[in-house]
Amino acid sequence: MSSIPTATVSRLVTYLRILGALDEEGVARTSSEHLAREAHVSAFQVRKDLAYFGRFGTRGAGYSVPTLRGELMRILGLTRPWNIAIVGVGRLGEALADYPNLERYDFRLRAAFDVDPAKIGRPVGGLTVRHLDELPRVAAEEELDIGLLTVPSEAAQEAADALYAAGVHGVLNFSPTVIDAPDGMHVEPVDFLAGLKRVSFYLQQPSPEEEPA
Amino acid sequence: MSSIPTATVSRLVTYLRILGALDEEGVARTSSEHLAREAHVSAFQVRKDLAYFGRFGTRGAGYSVPTLRGELMRILGLTRPWNIAIVGVGRLGEALADYPNLERYDFRLRAAFDVDPAKIGRPVGGLTVRHLDELPRVAAEEELDIGLLTVPSEAAQEAADALYAAGVHGVLNFSPTVIDAPDGMHVEPVDFLAGLKRVSFYLQQPSPEEEPA
Repeated sequence: MSSIPTATVSRLVTYLRILGALDEEGVARTSSEHLAREAHVSAFQVRKDLAYFGRFGTRGAGYSVPTLRGELMRILGLTRPWNIAIVGVGRLGEALADYPNLERYDFRLRAAFDVDPAKIGRPVGGLTVRHLDELPRVAAEEELDIGLLTVPSEAAQEAADALYAAGVHGVLNFSPTVIDAPDGMHVEPVDFLAGLKRVSFYLQQPSPEEEPA
Repeated sequence: MSSIPTATVSRLVTYLRILGALDEEGVARTSSEHLAREAHVSAFQVRKDLAYFGRFGTRGAGYSVPTLRGELMRILGLTRPWNIAIVGVGRLGEALADYPNLERYDFRLRAAFDVDPAKIGRPVGGLTVRHLDELPRVAAEEELDIGLLTVPSEAAQEAADALYAAGVHGVLNFSPTVIDAPDGMHVEPVDFLAGLKRVSFYLQQPSPEEEPA
């Protein structure tokens, strides 16, 4: 399904977040214009993004919030559970093992791997750290779907290759390095620096009161 | 500068990453079309995003890679150093203190804070953990610009308020909670779950070979 732009997928996740907030506030209906305003895109873009997946709204009447929310969850594959493994039990891996909200969307932490003998057998997030050599067997047993890659940069490609070989075709990559993903594997980078650069942009803008009158 | 859409700022960061890669490959010139393809947006969108900040390319000749890269760094405020503090020295805070590449764009880690007496005085990332009560004084002394918020969710708003009161107006929020930011403060969320939802989308798409012929 390479025909769906990655930017569209990112925006679907944003629309879902907005719809979730509306739903929790008890708002029954919304519009492309409202979603657009909240997501900082054009209403045309909202309609175009949704049009990849069918027709959802009614011209003039907008969208049913719970219906569109449910449709987006289905489109994003969030109506089924995903089994997750942490690969690299350093401080970041340990922090993620205890990350709240992971199970809110049925992301289930099923395994944790490392290669450091001092870490194997230790508890983390209710699991026991296993050696990465056990990945193929554990991936099959636990039906692992997604790896959280929290190994050092220099070990990231090899660990991603091991995940692919074990049939784990989704990766959230926390290493500050680009993974060369084989066809059929999806690697999503988590880039702290991109967030810092956005903060930088806003900080160096003149604040309104400092602008010349 | 509320007139610049946040989505544009996110895309500028993406264009900068693409230009950095081209520059490192020794590519001298590029086009809206190339940037668009790499960023998964339209060439019209690229031109519109850049047009907020002036005229950069030459019709028919495209852009000079090093010139546009430098302009984007200037626009994003990345040609000056930013002083950073970690607020919340749990495992995530400790992991960030040692995060490589932080200094690549002149983000300088200057201070780390916690409220746990057991952590105060301990070393982290070449610094000594200080009590959050010292934030106002340290913020002035170290000219802190940005806080990496890695406290538990329930402490996030109070910590963000303390940063704002101390004159630290940029925040990268790692807590899975929404911060109510006062005017003049910019809070950028780092949302692991959004990345996982994008992975989920790609995993549940039928792979080409599985589609009916």
